[in-house]
Amino acid sequence: MQTITSIRLLRNALSPLRNAGRSIGLVPTMGYLHEGHARLVSTAREQNDVVVVSIFVNPLQFGPNEDFAQYPRDLHHDEQMLTALGCDFIFAPSVNEMYPEPAVTVVDLPEMGQVLCGRTRPIHFRGVATVVSKLLHIVQPDKAYFGQKDGQQLAIILRMVQDLNLPLAIVGVPTVRESDGLAKSSRNIFLSVQDRPHATVLYRALQVARDDIEAGQRFAAEVMAHMAALISAEPTVRLDYAEAVDARTLQPLSVLSGTVMLAVAAYVGKTRLIDNIVLPLPPIDSPDIP
Amino acid sequence: MQTITSIRLLRNALSPLRNAGRSIGLVPTMGYLHEGHARLVSTAREQNDVVVVSIFVNPLQFGPNEDFAQYPRDLHHDEQMLTALGCDFIFAPSVNEMYPEPAVTVVDLPEMGQVLCGRTRPIHFRGVATVVSKLLHIVQPDKAYFGQKDGQQLAIILRMVQDLNLPLAIVGVPTVRESDGLAKSSRNIFLSVQDRPHATVLYRALQVARDDIEAGQRFAAEVMAHMAALISAEPTVRLDYAEAVDARTLQPLSVLSGTVMLAVAAYVGKTRLIDNIVLPLPPIDSPDIP
Repeated sequence: MQTITSIRLLRNALSPLRNAGRSIGLVPTMGYLHEGHARLVSTAREQNDVVVVSIFVNPLQFGPNEDFAQYPRDLHHDEQMLTALGCDFIFAPSVNEMYPEPAVTVVDLPEMGQVLCGRTRPIHFRGVATVVSKLLHIVQPDKAYFGQKDGQQLAIILRMVQDLNLPLAIVGVPTVRESDGLAKSSRNIFLSVQDRPHATVLYRALQVARDDIEAGQRFAAEVMAHMAALISAEPTVRLDYAEAVDARTLQPLSVLSGTVMLAVAAYVGKTRLIDNIVLPLPPIDSPDIP
Repeated sequence: MQTITSIRLLRNALSPLRNAGRSIGLVPTMGYLHEGHARLVSTAREQNDVVVVSIFVNPLQFGPNEDFAQYPRDLHHDEQMLTALGCDFIFAPSVNEMYPEPAVTVVDLPEMGQVLCGRTRPIHFRGVATVVSKLLHIVQPDKAYFGQKDGQQLAIILRMVQDLNLPLAIVGVPTVRESDGLAKSSRNIFLSVQDRPHATVLYRALQVARDDIEAGQRFAAEVMAHMAALISAEPTVRLDYAEAVDARTLQPLSVLSGTVMLAVAAYVGKTRLIDNIVLPLPPIDSPDIP
């Protein structure tokens, strides 16, 4: 495995492999890798001849009051983990290598980027779409891998690839959870021992909502209120949102049908966590609706 | 030469050529081709194994009161001309092929797209950047060719390619002019016999400004005022703008130095025309400045 920090050197390394017909899989990450990332890399490893993992904490996707400087970093640990997983190349550019001049060009999906997390993080998904677009042009992979845990991000990347005719496939990889249901996240490291048990309320709320829906509930407002009530009642937890949206467009639903994303975000202590599940429901006019 | 209207079929046609190591040149156009386009295609023909010319009048880059429906189209004439020029593939998709769903994703360079023509055409360059991004992903050319006549567009595409790390080279091709200096444009067809002689004022203003600068003038305001006065004094012509900007960033200059673009836009009768020239000037602290 090679760690490369230069765009030019990475292209030089990948170009002969691509020309020889080798398939390339890219796993874009911000580093500080955990088992969720490991599943992304394993999946890429199974499906491609060459696996590239990018590690880049992208300043463009952090707001002025967010945790860019505090975001955890540990390249040494990441390299060890990725060696064990059979990664071929780590691409770990500096901020200056990725943005030698201010980014004049932005890739934006306003309708999908201003909802859910976008309400509290208005520039986040523009930053994500822009940097992912750059990484896809630098690596030119056949497939790129994203976690379903970042459900809004995955929906946005899927739509960006479709809208801009990017010549690759996006693969969504299931969320990896702790034994108590907490979704793996690099930010879990910031949870205090006191707060940690309360962090499971995000997943518990999603499970309760799923139970409601399986019992026949189809009114989004009811499902959202139930999730919100549970999360709000949890000690040390402050609700950001609890929503039921169309999984592909992220637009609000009044009656649940089709592929639905239940998505929640909350501050547990000072740490902002997100989670979601996607449910395939019968179409709205189906006789299956109770 | 083959005319292809489907993205999938174009990719199928190009993929084996690319895999065999053939270089691909793309000339994006809106059709109704003239000698300016011919020079783009000839340049692409000299520099590449395979030449693709796209013909697509992109609704995204026309404002609600602009001439999308009236924009001239003549695919039959274009095919004849491109056959003669040795083009290999015409890509002529329908609006539905390019936008099967509404474009949620936009590629935007607000700082460069809101100046010059962007003041009267606020959504134009977002539409251009978005569709060019799509075309580059569909064709995946080694080089793409744009006319210097659309100077703001060329600067924006160059910056987009740099910012997003698109894996290709952009080639700017010199403006082709009528014998009296009028820049070739598909929209020249709309000039009435009465208005046509007045249309040369755009190029005449640029020449006068160049003379001023060659005589030592370095104050942008003086140069701009001189161009504006000439254009405004021309019968049947209404000035839109006359500016001197940094050719790379399109930002205004107070003192002219470095690579400067003189850019003008005016309505000649009802037809909006643009023109520009680029002058390489000594840096601002050079002893060459008089």
